[in-house]
Amino acid sequence: MSRIDGRTPEQLRPVTIERGWSKHAEGSVLVSFGDTKVLCTASVTEGVPRWRKGSGEGWVTAEYAMLPRSTNTRGDRESVKGRIGGRTHEISRLIGRSLRAVIDYKALGENTIVLDCDVLQADGGTRTAAITGSYVALADAVSWAQGKKIIKPGRQPLTGTVSAISVGIVGGVPLLDLCYEEDVKAETDMNVVCTGDGRFVEVQGTAEAEPFARSELDALLDLAVAGCTDLAAAQRAALGTVPEK
Amino acid sequence: MSRIDGRTPEQLRPVTIERGWSKHAEGSVLVSFGDTKVLCTASVTEGVPRWRKGSGEGWVTAEYAMLPRSTNTRGDRESVKGRIGGRTHEISRLIGRSLRAVIDYKALGENTIVLDCDVLQADGGTRTAAITGSYVALADAVSWAQGKKIIKPGRQPLTGTVSAISVGIVGGVPLLDLCYEEDVKAETDMNVVCTGDGRFVEVQGTAEAEPFARSELDALLDLAVAGCTDLAAAQRAALGTVPEK
Amino acid sequence: MSRIDGRTPEQLRPVTIERGWSKHAEGSVLVSFGDTKVLCTASVTEGVPRWRKGSGEGWVTAEYAMLPRSTNTRGDRESVKGRIGGRTHEISRLIGRSLRAVIDYKALGENTIVLDCDVLQADGGTRTAAITGSYVALADAVSWAQGKKIIKPGRQPLTGTVSAISVGIVGGVPLLDLCYEEDVKAETDMNVVCTGDGRFVEVQGTAEAEPFARSELDALLDLAVAGCTDLAAAQRAALGTVPEK
Amino acid sequence: MSRIDGRTPEQLRPVTIERGWSKHAEGSVLVSFGDTKVLCTASVTEGVPRWRKGSGEGWVTAEYAMLPRSTNTRGDRESVKGRIGGRTHEISRLIGRSLRAVIDYKALGENTIVLDCDVLQADGGTRTAAITGSYVALADAVSWAQGKKIIKPGRQPLTGTVSAISVGIVGGVPLLDLCYEEDVKAETDMNVVCTGDGRFVEVQGTAEAEPFARSELDALLDLAVAGCTDLAAAQRAALGTVPEK
Amino acid sequence: MSRIDGRTPEQLRPVTIERGWSKHAEGSVLVSFGDTKVLCTASVTEGVPRWRKGSGEGWVTAEYAMLPRSTNTRGDRESVKGRIGGRTHEISRLIGRSLRAVIDYKALGENTIVLDCDVLQADGGTRTAAITGSYVALADAVSWAQGKKIIKPGRQPLTGTVSAISVGIVGGVPLLDLCYEEDVKAETDMNVVCTGDGRFVEVQGTAEAEPFARSELDALLDLAVAGCTDLAAAQRAALGTVPEK
Amino acid sequence: MSRIDGRTPEQLRPVTIERGWSKHAEGSVLVSFGDTKVLCTASVTEGVPRWRKGSGEGWVTAEYAMLPRSTNTRGDRESVKGRIGGRTHEISRLIGRSLRAVIDYKALGENTIVLDCDVLQADGGTRTAAITGSYVALADAVSWAQGKKIIKPGRQPLTGTVSAISVGIVGGVPLLDLCYEEDVKAETDMNVVCTGDGRFVEVQGTAEAEPFARSELDALLDLAVAGCTDLAAAQRAALGTVPEK
Repeated sequence: MSRIDGRTPEQLRPVTIERGWSKHAEGSVLVSFGDTKVLCTASVTEGVPRWRKGSGEGWVTAEYAMLPRSTNTRGDRESVKGRIGGRTHEISRLIGRSLRAVIDYKALGENTIVLDCDVLQADGGTRTAAITGSYVALADAVSWAQGKKIIKPGRQPLTGTVSAISVGIVGGVPLLDLCYEEDVKAETDMNVVCTGDGRFVEVQGTAEAEPFARSELDALLDLAVAGCTDLAAAQRAALGTVPEK
Repeated sequence: MSRIDGRTPEQLRPVTIERGWSKHAEGSVLVSFGDTKVLCTASVTEGVPRWRKGSGEGWVTAEYAMLPRSTNTRGDRESVKGRIGGRTHEISRLIGRSLRAVIDYKALGENTIVLDCDVLQADGGTRTAAITGSYVALADAVSWAQGKKIIKPGRQPLTGTVSAISVGIVGGVPLLDLCYEEDVKAETDMNVVCTGDGRFVEVQGTAEAEPFARSELDALLDLAVAGCTDLAAAQRAALGTVPEK
Repeated sequence: MSRIDGRTPEQLRPVTIERGWSKHAEGSVLVSFGDTKVLCTASVTEGVPRWRKGSGEGWVTAEYAMLPRSTNTRGDRESVKGRIGGRTHEISRLIGRSLRAVIDYKALGENTIVLDCDVLQADGGTRTAAITGSYVALADAVSWAQGKKIIKPGRQPLTGTVSAISVGIVGGVPLLDLCYEEDVKAETDMNVVCTGDGRFVEVQGTAEAEPFARSELDALLDLAVAGCTDLAAAQRAALGTVPEK
Repeated sequence: MSRIDGRTPEQLRPVTIERGWSKHAEGSVLVSFGDTKVLCTASVTEGVPRWRKGSGEGWVTAEYAMLPRSTNTRGDRESVKGRIGGRTHEISRLIGRSLRAVIDYKALGENTIVLDCDVLQADGGTRTAAITGSYVALADAVSWAQGKKIIKPGRQPLTGTVSAISVGIVGGVPLLDLCYEEDVKAETDMNVVCTGDGRFVEVQGTAEAEPFARSELDALLDLAVAGCTDLAAAQRAALGTVPEK
Repeated sequence: MSRIDGRTPEQLRPVTIERGWSKHAEGSVLVSFGDTKVLCTASVTEGVPRWRKGSGEGWVTAEYAMLPRSTNTRGDRESVKGRIGGRTHEISRLIGRSLRAVIDYKALGENTIVLDCDVLQADGGTRTAAITGSYVALADAVSWAQGKKIIKPGRQPLTGTVSAISVGIVGGVPLLDLCYEEDVKAETDMNVVCTGDGRFVEVQGTAEAEPFARSELDALLDLAVAGCTDLAAAQRAALGTVPEK
Repeated sequence: MSRIDGRTPEQLRPVTIERGWSKHAEGSVLVSFGDTKVLCTASVTEGVPRWRKGSGEGWVTAEYAMLPRSTNTRGDRESVKGRIGGRTHEISRLIGRSLRAVIDYKALGENTIVLDCDVLQADGGTRTAAITGSYVALADAVSWAQGKKIIKPGRQPLTGTVSAISVGIVGGVPLLDLCYEEDVKAETDMNVVCTGDGRFVEVQGTAEAEPFARSELDALLDLAVAGCTDLAAAQRAALGTVPEK
């Protein structure tokens, strides 16, 4: 049984990670998971939000958004509506938590890195592409800040790598890296964020139709861990060498 | 090793489910998980949102909020700030999805049930208490609508029961139903939503400090499933009899 | 001629004042006037708003809100609408002014007390119940702050007590403490805030249908003053002893 | 004892009512109470808000605002702040209620009249000037609509006249029509809205410093009724003849 | 061929500039271009916005708004809508830029002048009337600040005068100072801001129907420069003498 | 005298127009003017805004936005701030007007085309690149709609082509197509929108420092017209053949 785009159930879509996409940002990546394309930029600023001042610790946060016509039908701009939707909030928070899982705040010092993940084209898995691409942009921003001595010499704020992938059950079959057409048909949908050493940062599984059994959950987790291993390799390849824990 | 409040790791806090708390709502429950108290009301209206008109199907949605001084230090009102925060959005969406998992939209007919979950006092686990209490308020609202023939005779929109519990790893030990003091110290935090027959509706696990291993995830899921079994019993006891799938 | 609920025209509904309702707030009261139930919490913070800094004087303010299903039909949340309605604004301001009428800012010192009045169930008279209950929560918060030496020893910020009641003309008859059903039929509606020694803090009378005559106004004021005397007694009973001017 | 501007306690400031100020509005008045100047326009539209459709009844509403530099120090624009303040809400609602007190909705038919009261220069009493001027603008708009047959021939939506005045106790002396300098010093401040036949539409009294006694309230009401009688005469003079009940 | 109101193509409407309209503002002008009436107030405050602190330089900014019934049909208030529209934003920015073109920030010192331009009645050309009137209000505010020594003795922040006029092509004919009826029919519409010595501060031309040719643009510029010369004379007449560059 | 990037004063930066960038939008272009990159998508929907229904005429509108890190320092998202800034409003309106200048609404029929112009990287001239690229996206969307018979056979809604370029005076020298570094130093800044046949759609010139003379304005217009001629050629090259008036 083959998938819409001919993949096997445990196969990722083609992944590309293009570094240095922007001339302005300290780190920037155009990441694609198949037809899903997300521009991830990392902006370094000295100083931290007020509630963290004097702590000696840094901060990493993220904002996610979709261009209005990144999707099949045009969505209204949240800036025009005057408010951020629940889904946007949720994904922005997820990306931020995922990246902070591999950050040593003390080593970062009182500096802030903001990741902006703007979906240029959506075809399922935008949040997982965003996390995977943002990690690479973050790594480049950290290198930049080390070069500028904004991060103190000898300090390494990255404690590991992080990537993310979606999995789901479609027609009873567990699949890796759902495209949009699969996503809308999925009975169960899960996003998994893993570190490069195979541990979990975030597991979010949702029954879209029927509740799911423990055995299904287990099968999905297996698929996801394998997918994240491949993504970690792609990140390493893109970066040349990365700091490992 | 005993917990802050003397419980064993796999023990729930005292759970109370007080039905008929409000004279106005079609279903209403004051639920408490220890010192966490959430008022859940279910409001039935005939008709559905515009995007669903003519489908013959109903809709169930939820809104969650915390009173400003439900917490240890006062939080600003979201109405005064003029916007809903990300956490509020996220939890409202989670509650809605969880309840829709046990709803047969066709049997509900073109009616809408809105669950309002207002946290009167918070001590950890407000979202899981909200889901557990809301199910009971929803069941009462469904009965009311059946009695009023708003739901057609012989139709049962509830396809099962649903409850939720938090689990987490604190000091290396997996614990059930974290109170606030445990929650802030947890290395890993997970919210699990189960149906009464022990299947999963939602699994949301987050590494607060260290990434977590598959074995830890498994231990947490075991704890959560057992906890939800107890909560389902408490719901049944509160309702007398409930429709089972 | 008897009223809907069997009361005489000059009779209050049963009033209950339950102190210490919340484990978190410095003062908290669940007040009920018949089926109207309002949760009033008082939050003490050291410091004052910017415009008052360095004055040596404190500040007391209030926020009022209704839970969406505190009423007979569900109202949209103001947080979701993104703005506070005129009625909410008006009542919040009224409660704040009423409480400030019995506050000696100098004795309070540069501390702020915020009263949150959340209507859990509405059946007419929510603003008057809120003022009456808030006074008790405020008194408890003041005691707490005196115990913590946040208020300087020997200083008493409360210069008296304050309570409030609604009156109105229904079917030509002046009535005390209108329930919702009476309120919607009232030709004239008035809210009166009195100190414990029988003087006026606020008088707000509105012709809902016909303009009203001076004699009607006088009859309503008489009723209201008597009602506030009873409420002051209920406050005293709840508090044990209260500071009188 | 004479007042800041030489008036006796029971004397109004010079009142002017300039009709037809605007070339566009169906009714328009520039009203002044001393240095307080308010532009009141009445806009007639056929049709009513959705909640009133099919009732056969009309609607009258009002919006009040201050120009940023109508006051001694510049205030931020509410449009720029993105929200209406509590005071603005409160006064807009008061003006609307006051005018609706002299409207027969059936006679108006399904038409809406909006009164816009924009304070060009403020020196105390802006809400009372707004009500007094708006009545005249409303009367002109009604005449216009009668002339255009928008209001059915032979129908008179105005059931009387309405005006308003402020009163207050300053230095222990009850004063009529406070200017700003008196207003800020007032111990008690009251706004009274009366019909042309001397009955009350609205009474709003507030203790700014000390609570006030019944005798003080009575003295203020006496002053206010006399002041409104004078204002009703000024309205009649401005309009030539007005429909009396 | 004569215009709607009998003017020749190159003729301004009657222009009046009434200084000292407000008792509160440091400078205030009621300007009229025919039936267009704009109240311009200039508010001086010591200090500058945060981004300019310590620069030794001042700031001048402007806000434009229309009263709801300044136009033929009532427009909703932007404060009620909770957001400023694009046109309002655009015009506010244009007025601010135009006035800053004749300001020497160093001579102004760290002081801010805010121009509020509120359209009381609109009949075309509101932005050009606002600029022309605001200049005079600004000049009066500068004189006031010099008198109060807020601006240092011997410093002249005004480097020239500025005024503005609309021009357009209607029925193929270039016209000066369009009234509303001409404006809606114009094929091309242009607003031109000039200094008193005939140079350009701003040129904004828009093809409303057909694109326009260079020769048409040239004809419109000629008309506008002549119109601004007349307006500069009217400003000089209103002010008595003005500082020229 | 050569420019920062070696161009002559009358030389454009390298222009690229990449059609079909998005798989979803009916027309999509990634346009670059040097380092300025704007993604322009055109979305076709059947139907028109409510105020245009039944007219038989279509509508074209545009929205412009900058990604937060498209600039040298990160800007806050307007969606997060909850409001659109004045500059964004102004440019969105300019793009919409410019494209509507070459649209025959009748030929378009009751269909709407929305242009979204999102700046991925900014280096001066984002609005002019947006207009130039949007025209090509619009042309592709029109072709698509003709192919789908959404636009009636034989109807051509495009009446010509449109492009835009910035010009300015830097160090006394008129320059074409300013990059950011030139833009911030410009004494005068002008944006010019032309049709393919060399007529003007919009001329917006602003004195950033000194007011400018007629001769300077003339020189800038000459430069701009020549630049737009080159851009029209680039558009034609990108499209193969375009409908000319």
